[in-house]
Amino acid sequence: MTSPLEFARAERSRFYRELWEFLRIPSVSAKSEHDGDVERTADWVRDQLAGAGLEAQVHATPGHPVVVGEWRGAGADAPTVLIYGHYDVQPPEPLDLWESPPFEPEVRDGRIYARGAADDKGQLFLHLKALEAHLATRGQLPVNVVVLAEGEEEVGSPNLVPFVAEHRERLQADTVVISDSAMFAPGTPSLLFSLRGLAYFEIHAMGPSTDLHSGAYGGAVANPANALAKIVAGLHDETGRIAVSGFYDDVADPPPEVLEGIRRLPFDADEYAREVGTSPAGGEEGYSLLERLWTRPCCDVNGLLSGYTGEGAKTVLPSSAMAKVSFRLVPDQTPERVRELLEAHLERVAPSGVALKVVELHGGRPWRAAVGGPVFDAASRALEQAFGARPVLAGEGGSIPIVVELEELLGAETLLLGFALPGANMHAPNEWFATDCFEKGIETLVRLYDELAGRRAKLG
Amino acid sequence: MTSPLEFARAERSRFYRELWEFLRIPSVSAKSEHDGDVERTADWVRDQLAGAGLEAQVHATPGHPVVVGEWRGAGADAPTVLIYGHYDVQPPEPLDLWESPPFEPEVRDGRIYARGAADDKGQLFLHLKALEAHLATRGQLPVNVVVLAEGEEEVGSPNLVPFVAEHRERLQADTVVISDSAMFAPGTPSLLFSLRGLAYFEIHAMGPSTDLHSGAYGGAVANPANALAKIVAGLHDETGRIAVSGFYDDVADPPPEVLEGIRRLPFDADEYAREVGTSPAGGEEGYSLLERLWTRPCCDVNGLLSGYTGEGAKTVLPSSAMAKVSFRLVPDQTPERVRELLEAHLERVAPSGVALKVVELHGGRPWRAAVGGPVFDAASRALEQAFGARPVLAGEGGSIPIVVELEELLGAETLLLGFALPGANMHAPNEWFATDCFEKGIETLVRLYDELAGRRAKLG
Repeated sequence: MTSPLEFARAERSRFYRELWEFLRIPSVSAKSEHDGDVERTADWVRDQLAGAGLEAQVHATPGHPVVVGEWRGAGADAPTVLIYGHYDVQPPEPLDLWESPPFEPEVRDGRIYARGAADDKGQLFLHLKALEAHLATRGQLPVNVVVLAEGEEEVGSPNLVPFVAEHRERLQADTVVISDSAMFAPGTPSLLFSLRGLAYFEIHAMGPSTDLHSGAYGGAVANPANALAKIVAGLHDETGRIAVSGFYDDVADPPPEVLEGIRRLPFDADEYAREVGTSPAGGEEGYSLLERLWTRPCCDVNGLLSGYTGEGAKTVLPSSAMAKVSFRLVPDQTPERVRELLEAHLERVAPSGVALKVVELHGGRPWRAAVGGPVFDAASRALEQAFGARPVLAGEGGSIPIVVELEELLGAETLLLGFALPGANMHAPNEWFATDCFEKGIETLVRLYDELAGRRAKLG
Repeated sequence: MTSPLEFARAERSRFYRELWEFLRIPSVSAKSEHDGDVERTADWVRDQLAGAGLEAQVHATPGHPVVVGEWRGAGADAPTVLIYGHYDVQPPEPLDLWESPPFEPEVRDGRIYARGAADDKGQLFLHLKALEAHLATRGQLPVNVVVLAEGEEEVGSPNLVPFVAEHRERLQADTVVISDSAMFAPGTPSLLFSLRGLAYFEIHAMGPSTDLHSGAYGGAVANPANALAKIVAGLHDETGRIAVSGFYDDVADPPPEVLEGIRRLPFDADEYAREVGTSPAGGEEGYSLLERLWTRPCCDVNGLLSGYTGEGAKTVLPSSAMAKVSFRLVPDQTPERVRELLEAHLERVAPSGVALKVVELHGGRPWRAAVGGPVFDAASRALEQAFGARPVLAGEGGSIPIVVELEELLGAETLLLGFALPGANMHAPNEWFATDCFEKGIETLVRLYDELAGRRAKLG
């Protein structure tokens, strides 16, 4: 009899072909012009689940659909694993910086280049194929499985929590497994101990009722772009700390053993800065780079727009200016509290002659794992067998807002097991996923389901 | 015999039809896609001049052409008047804010709405028609006339000075007349005593070599948009003064009698702020609004662009950020010196991890008139007769960089005689020119040529 691992290896080229199909659909959830593509992608995921042998359905929501797949054949005594992933992707812009089109996957130097290759279509796909490998070879899975794939992760999952709350009983699970993050380094598999939360805002500064001639009015009319620059500049103090009063009140330091673990990781901050092309790296004084990234909150401008931005010199005094500004949060901060603090801050610093408006676009709470225990051990073994190296504990600067909410709604423990590599350009042009991680990722997950059920995978 | 004034009144509806033709050509000099339109507009101006009876030619330059018209029949003893204007226009964007299309002129409530209606096609056209009125009725002009119409005023006139220098002898004049500015108020004709200069830059802040995920990198990588906001904010101090070291060293106060005149003007700063839709108005502390606008330098952001500016929340840490920033200058500041000071300032404040680049886009020196004398008196009489009100001396916050250079090259005295009204949306959507000013403007200029020659216009 063929083992699941042998099956996965034998079917590899078909898996790639299918992944190409998946990546080609431009499922950009932030842009309404792609609504049809997002729906097509949901159908594609459902067909994959059904093809593998799960019961699968596409559920409409007020936004993009949720796909649910279920396999309950392991019985009431076996654990239930809920696999969460998302099939939507970030907008691909700026398009001119892509070396190959974002929705035409291409392999170069052992990397699959495409929007969604790493975040998160490529990683969700690993699970689809690991499930298929078990069911195709053994006719069953070692655990009960629920797959929950949403199409709104990149816009803040507005409809997932209501959906999960409504189907809470049906989705009950012991363990939630999510592959939507990165490994600490190539060849170093990782388990995540933390995710930062997010509070994302648009700040609008509104001045004159129409654009004005900057010569005829300059110096006599408050300029909303200058005012906005001052507001954005005022979000940090000289040491890189966030200057919003009360912002650090809810920041809880991580346990000493986690900090100790971070200090032991082999990491060269100068090399990191060289790789991203900015040297020295930035951020808050008094913390190491990995501490800043994994254990400290931060505030970044994500976009700026005002006035004339085309070719040449247009002498305009703009009527308004906009900044997209987001905060990354750590326990025990919440997006709700950060919004209150930001609004109070803006009221204090509001410039005269310019009106301010804050729009909240996206929010999610931070998360820290209860490190250790049988689920972590099972994942650790699966990773070590597939990659031939012991996994490390790593933090993640990004956010998966749904993690906290799924844990609370389902009473489950979450395992964050990601296979992207650092520098994968998630959310940027030329996103990629290593073919090596693609192949070892499937192998890890094939083994993981066995490990979670308490038995070793039969080696292929 | 019909007088020039009678002719101008009788031919009014044809004049409007011809103005419509002129305004319909989208002669946007800043955008290369309109190069053909700019050339067509030059040809149109030449045909108008030739049709009126001047010798007219289109002269190619390395950029957009210069149109020259000449009439030398008044003889060597008569004064020579050089009429300068520009037939290019500002870009019309943002298009969605126009109530009627920018290149489809439309009259609403006594206003001609179109890009260029006031700045400067509409005002240049007044001269074309005043010249035609004289030549059509008397077969001659009371003064020698040179018309110099350029197509690059809105991009800083890069080729006009070399052209004038090359044709210096032929363009020699006693008086330069320019109608490219506004009256102080409806019903209050004005002569300008000053123009501010301009120094317009793009400041680029460059951080990581590619856009990054703001979660995966935020707090560890210097964000060029945050850095740029800090730089822009640092261009002013808390009192609204420009915080570039040395910036005020060359600022010369205007003569006390000019300041006295400004204080006597009927002006309600609160009403002004209400009209522009920003209250209170902004700017430097310690000066009245008209003083700030006419006698003090200022610094405005004209455009901001960074990262993701579309719909929704994209969590990107942008690789670069750009600000268009311009300074308005007063005597004795120069754009060259301001550039040096800005560059020195940016070197001092340069943030770590972000590279800065400054691109100079546009520059022009400030100007102050030698108020009084026969030319001013002649213009004063022509305005009073046409408008039935005594003109006031007013300043202008905007720039016509070529004024200083024409004065120096031609050794002529400049008369700035504008007919736009405050709030005409020059450089903004819904630019307009009052039909009343259009008609009285032609009448003023018909009378002006006579006044400059020392004889009263024969009233129609």
